[in-house]
Amino acid sequence: MKKTHNQSSEQLMLRAIELAQKAWGQTHNNPMVGALIVHQGSIVSEGYHQLSGSQHAEIMALEGFKENADKDTELFITLEPCSTPGRTGACTEAILNSGIKKVFVGTLDPNPHHAGKGLDFLKSKGIDVVSGILEADCRDLNILFNHWIVHKKPLCTLKMAVTLDGCLAASTGQSKWITGEKARTDVMRWRRLFPAIGATQSTVLNDNPQLTSRLNEKVFCPKRFIFNRRLKGIEDFEKYSVYNDAFKENTTLVYGEGSSKASIESLKQTGLDAWEVGESEDGLLFEDFLSRCAEASLCGIFIEPGAKLATHLIQNKIADYLFMYQSPKLLLDQKASSLGYERSSQRMDESINLSDIRRSDFGEDHLVRGFLKL
Amino acid sequence: MKKTHNQSSEQLMLRAIELAQKAWGQTHNNPMVGALIVHQGSIVSEGYHQLSGSQHAEIMALEGFKENADKDTELFITLEPCSTPGRTGACTEAILNSGIKKVFVGTLDPNPHHAGKGLDFLKSKGIDVVSGILEADCRDLNILFNHWIVHKKPLCTLKMAVTLDGCLAASTGQSKWITGEKARTDVMRWRRLFPAIGATQSTVLNDNPQLTSRLNEKVFCPKRFIFNRRLKGIEDFEKYSVYNDAFKENTTLVYGEGSSKASIESLKQTGLDAWEVGESEDGLLFEDFLSRCAEASLCGIFIEPGAKLATHLIQNKIADYLFMYQSPKLLLDQKASSLGYERSSQRMDESINLSDIRRSDFGEDHLVRGFLKL
Repeated sequence: MKKTHNQSSEQLMLRAIELAQKAWGQTHNNPMVGALIVHQGSIVSEGYHQLSGSQHAEIMALEGFKENADKDTELFITLEPCSTPGRTGACTEAILNSGIKKVFVGTLDPNPHHAGKGLDFLKSKGIDVVSGILEADCRDLNILFNHWIVHKKPLCTLKMAVTLDGCLAASTGQSKWITGEKARTDVMRWRRLFPAIGATQSTVLNDNPQLTSRLNEKVFCPKRFIFNRRLKGIEDFEKYSVYNDAFKENTTLVYGEGSSKASIESLKQTGLDAWEVGESEDGLLFEDFLSRCAEASLCGIFIEPGAKLATHLIQNKIADYLFMYQSPKLLLDQKASSLGYERSSQRMDESINLSDIRRSDFGEDHLVRGFLKL
Repeated sequence: MKKTHNQSSEQLMLRAIELAQKAWGQTHNNPMVGALIVHQGSIVSEGYHQLSGSQHAEIMALEGFKENADKDTELFITLEPCSTPGRTGACTEAILNSGIKKVFVGTLDPNPHHAGKGLDFLKSKGIDVVSGILEADCRDLNILFNHWIVHKKPLCTLKMAVTLDGCLAASTGQSKWITGEKARTDVMRWRRLFPAIGATQSTVLNDNPQLTSRLNEKVFCPKRFIFNRRLKGIEDFEKYSVYNDAFKENTTLVYGEGSSKASIESLKQTGLDAWEVGESEDGLLFEDFLSRCAEASLCGIFIEPGAKLATHLIQNKIADYLFMYQSPKLLLDQKASSLGYERSSQRMDESINLSDIRRSDFGEDHLVRGFLKL
């Protein structure tokens, strides 16, 4: 076990975050949580929540802790321990029983009905509680869970790659590649996190993407939604990866209720899974689609849209979260694909701003991500 | 003086860079250089090049060094010492005479005729030389000098602020403010570095900017160039800051040779400094303008252009360097001001890429900067 001499509480919490991330994409619709115990200057036990239904991170850490807690024994947890006995029993009770007198917590329970209650319980029992250690990082660990637990809807997330001058593709439609390999590997990481991914039929026809996560030889296929309002190209569906690969059962076509009977008949013959959703003047009613995702308990969808769909979802406040990978290049092409409508006029203070902004560099590229609305 | 126990050579070089930056914007057309001497585990002397013609950084550090050099005495310099006796005598000789046997250097002399010669001389005299410590940072310290010494032309630099979707202003023309206060303070810092600044007459008419550097109550006015092809608005010039403030003598109007006699006559009556330059179909011939800047020994110009001028200067490979401040907001307006022409079609590999990329965050905003061509 690692020595903690000279390790700050931030460094120890960072280790707890690393532990939590061992279950990256595997805990839905539960949060990722990491925990560790420091005793006599060393980390003596570590734990994380491995998958929904399995033991909580702090319980795993407590079970691995074989010494007797003394006044310097410390428990670090990325998330406030639960105070209600769920499938696994209340963690606050287990902490109390462990004899540990000092607890460091990253972030509060995002459920407003529970937030702070676990900590209040521990404090009422004489336990020294320090909360807010790497708070933003611990909260960021669970962007999907935090949204789900409050709204009971999937976090509708858009991912785009863009040049410095705002182009999503060249005027020829070509977008391979705006960003370099490192940024594209990061996309694979996020595809592994989200339980569902979305793309338009145009993307399928143009790029024939796999829409899987491919990381270190490991292939993971989230639920794949293809937005195809009028069931375009349904006759030729077998030509495309998402409809014929080993994960084809993970693919669901999303089409509009106004599609022709003939198209719907063709669809039936394909045997593909499909959802019919409502329509507005602008196209598919994404509100309908997302409600259906909620019914299917999907806590997040990672949509890789074209410019038109992205503009629609942002402007209509349907999208919750944005990943924007930025490449340090310029196309200088007014006809290149970019976000936006033909508006009449607009003031600077009418812009749509990101919040809870996180930034990372991937080689020469840069990712900015954040919430599109509070 | 600071103790160096446990300080790595990178940390010591970082201190030398800080020393160099004490002369930020004051050394043209010489480089900024910092130097320090470590003796018996402490920094015992520091120096920097204060202004063109004053003593070199390493000479200042050597003069402040009052002990006897022993085998552990170390000299750190951000830039290779000169080996030719200029106005101040060759620094390599002074180092040799100091008895110091160990020299750490950040980056080589950017002049290809001199690069490496100073270090070779020191090595030939038995001095232990380590070069390349924080090389990229030390090179970045002198983007203006490095360009000037090779090309004898000013580094033509563009500064823009842009939204995530590539808008430079709302469709109303409004650009106050895309970025926040911290990013705008950083712009002030760069305006203090560059000996010259440039803007269009449209910017003067719309925003009436001061085009000065205002940092901590200190106001500095670089040479200000206003690009005004047809001497538009020359009758009303006194309404605008750049033509009537305390620094108005730093303002030079740049107009086209095709301007009307009447306009040129009006210009003469203003008493303003002005340069007449050639024209092409696209507007002012910036090549002419930059040659004239070179004759005036200006090693760099910081242009704050509109979309049209920026597109022209980038596309025609006139601009050398780009500062792009990016704000995490979206306008979603196809009519908003953005870079680019109406091109016929273009492939992704025809993009213009930045090199020697540097990134910094300013509050929620982000700066990416780099060279537009090698």
